[in-house]
Amino acid sequence: MPAPLSGITVLDLTHVLAGPFCSSTLQDLGARIIKVERPVTGDDTRAFPPFLGGESAYFAALNAGKHSIALDLKQPADRAIFDRLLGRADILLENYRPGVMERLGYGYDSLHARFPRLIYGAVSGFGHTGPDAAKPAYDMVVQARGGVMSITGEEGGPPVRVGASIGDIVAGMYLAQGVLAALYSREKTGEGAKIDIAMLDAQIPIQEHAIAIATATGHPPGPTGARHPTITPFSTFRAADGFFVIAAGNDALFGKLCTTLGLDPADPRFATNGLRCDNVHLLKRLIETVTLQQPVAHWIATLDAAGIPTGRVQNMAQALADPQILARNMVLPVTPRDGGGPAFTAAGNPIKMSTLPEQSARPPAPTLDGDRAAILDWLDHPA
Amino acid sequence: MPAPLSGITVLDLTHVLAGPFCSSTLQDLGARIIKVERPVTGDDTRAFPPFLGGESAYFAALNAGKHSIALDLKQPADRAIFDRLLGRADILLENYRPGVMERLGYGYDSLHARFPRLIYGAVSGFGHTGPDAAKPAYDMVVQARGGVMSITGEEGGPPVRVGASIGDIVAGMYLAQGVLAALYSREKTGEGAKIDIAMLDAQIPIQEHAIAIATATGHPPGPTGARHPTITPFSTFRAADGFFVIAAGNDALFGKLCTTLGLDPADPRFATNGLRCDNVHLLKRLIETVTLQQPVAHWIATLDAAGIPTGRVQNMAQALADPQILARNMVLPVTPRDGGGPAFTAAGNPIKMSTLPEQSARPPAPTLDGDRAAILDWLDHPA
Repeated sequence: MPAPLSGITVLDLTHVLAGPFCSSTLQDLGARIIKVERPVTGDDTRAFPPFLGGESAYFAALNAGKHSIALDLKQPADRAIFDRLLGRADILLENYRPGVMERLGYGYDSLHARFPRLIYGAVSGFGHTGPDAAKPAYDMVVQARGGVMSITGEEGGPPVRVGASIGDIVAGMYLAQGVLAALYSREKTGEGAKIDIAMLDAQIPIQEHAIAIATATGHPPGPTGARHPTITPFSTFRAADGFFVIAAGNDALFGKLCTTLGLDPADPRFATNGLRCDNVHLLKRLIETVTLQQPVAHWIATLDAAGIPTGRVQNMAQALADPQILARNMVLPVTPRDGGGPAFTAAGNPIKMSTLPEQSARPPAPTLDGDRAAILDWLDHPA
Repeated sequence: MPAPLSGITVLDLTHVLAGPFCSSTLQDLGARIIKVERPVTGDDTRAFPPFLGGESAYFAALNAGKHSIALDLKQPADRAIFDRLLGRADILLENYRPGVMERLGYGYDSLHARFPRLIYGAVSGFGHTGPDAAKPAYDMVVQARGGVMSITGEEGGPPVRVGASIGDIVAGMYLAQGVLAALYSREKTGEGAKIDIAMLDAQIPIQEHAIAIATATGHPPGPTGARHPTITPFSTFRAADGFFVIAAGNDALFGKLCTTLGLDPADPRFATNGLRCDNVHLLKRLIETVTLQQPVAHWIATLDAAGIPTGRVQNMAQALADPQILARNMVLPVTPRDGGGPAFTAAGNPIKMSTLPEQSARPPAPTLDGDRAAILDWLDHPA
């Protein structure tokens, strides 16, 4: 059974994170990614720390298995190569500011007229329409403006950035969804489509809870630290040697939790979820007077045995060594380029499909322009 | 031009968030969603606060436009209806714990034998394989165990939950990607596929930066509050009336920022990004001695004019009134069920496609079992 996107070629003009994250997903699903980089410097993330053996570990993981050709889209000779690539590609991805592709002569309308089957996927800070379309944006700008920083952080404290770059990443994921839908649709209609994803837009649907609270109550929610805003007990707790989570989402689980910890399950102050929310700080102290007496491992084993959802708060080193994460093949070595070189590590593919073989390693990321000869040869020899 | 997933029918057994988030995306792309709910109570989120007119605003937004039939999959009469639905569906979504569908007689292997074109999408806490497959999980459990809480929060402070439920949501997005890839692939092979998404798995790829740091340096990163860990100045700053972001990602932008704020662009303590990172707290104080003298609106206008990426830290009420977000149609009213009833609000569709008309409102969410007659009638009248 071939991989779902077997035979699909992606021309990837994107750099940094949102676009490359999208093309990595398409690659995991079986597509071939041709990274079209600007000459001399290439993708900005080639210069992003940390480095191993002079190469960016960040770039190496995010671009593992892609192919690179360096083209200056203002130079006639390179434009001629790009035109030939467009004739062979299924998907074009770009993350320029709106208008740049049009000025280069590669706007969607003209490309669609020449290559009606081409799927054109764009991701930008604010999208191709609206009053702020031309403004620059970064992950943190859309995290701020889209609201997620206002609901992240300590209760009563200043806004906190989500540690993961969800401003870029969620946008890249929506772009992948649009591209995949367009691929399916093209099988029916024979026509490509343009997809226009805005990082700011993408922040809104992921805050379904905050939208419901803000619109139904008139009061936008604030940050609540490490606890669920409307379910109790559902937060981190301190053990003797670190933090762990207890997620007792209903009365039955709360009763089990009390029995397990030796607390009084009939305490009227905690009889309902509403009362537990009203007395959340008191309940937390009562639970921690017990949990601080034993290490995290003890509580994970005890709560697991009682069927109460729990988990250790892990740092990234611990997460990358977690037996479940490893068993699911979510941590992959990146194969060094010529049998030597730095040992990079990349995330595995979270889309487990019966039609997609699991990988045990990722191929190396390309050197800048490192696949030029092979790509030109492929253009000369149509399949 | 029909919507990309026009003609596609999804049987949606999922409840709460990850699965319904996925089916909402498929619906935005044109699919018809038949929500198969358990009798009497239905989807748990029908009972989630906040409420308007006795209905959950949370459920109303996340299930807008879906159709509902209540079926008890342990009862022969309801199983007979479900079997007929399977014969007409393209996609089945479920979020039970692993093994539940097999015990009901609806495991993938037996379904694939009977309905070879059916695409089977599953999302669970830990996936269908690995030592912890059978354990229960919630968003916060996978946020904790997957590492994102360890990089979110104040510098040196305790772990903080991401305010958005990215444990559920990113998993639901990966499920949508897998389903879309399988739909495309089915056009080529005639066969469906099983997709097995784990919420814990899905936390790993979104932390590309933390993985690079943990594996290349041996030191897992911690939280950095509201600043970028390796670029300075790139964080929130205080103005007279609130917080805003300055994202000066390179030397040129930093020079412009100094000129704009009246700071010395030649100060040797800030000559490179590395030095600015070393002196991040001093630089922040110097910038805030200026920015605290004017309101946020002043600084947004001033930095916009200078071409420096910036944005207000908005709460959800402000975000939902943001002219750019409104211009992009990202806030939609939910049409009341019979011309009356509560005025719910839902997020718009962030996948803007040339082949997908924009919506100006979302249809209402279904009452429990509210579409039974229409669905049974459809089963009796093959298209």
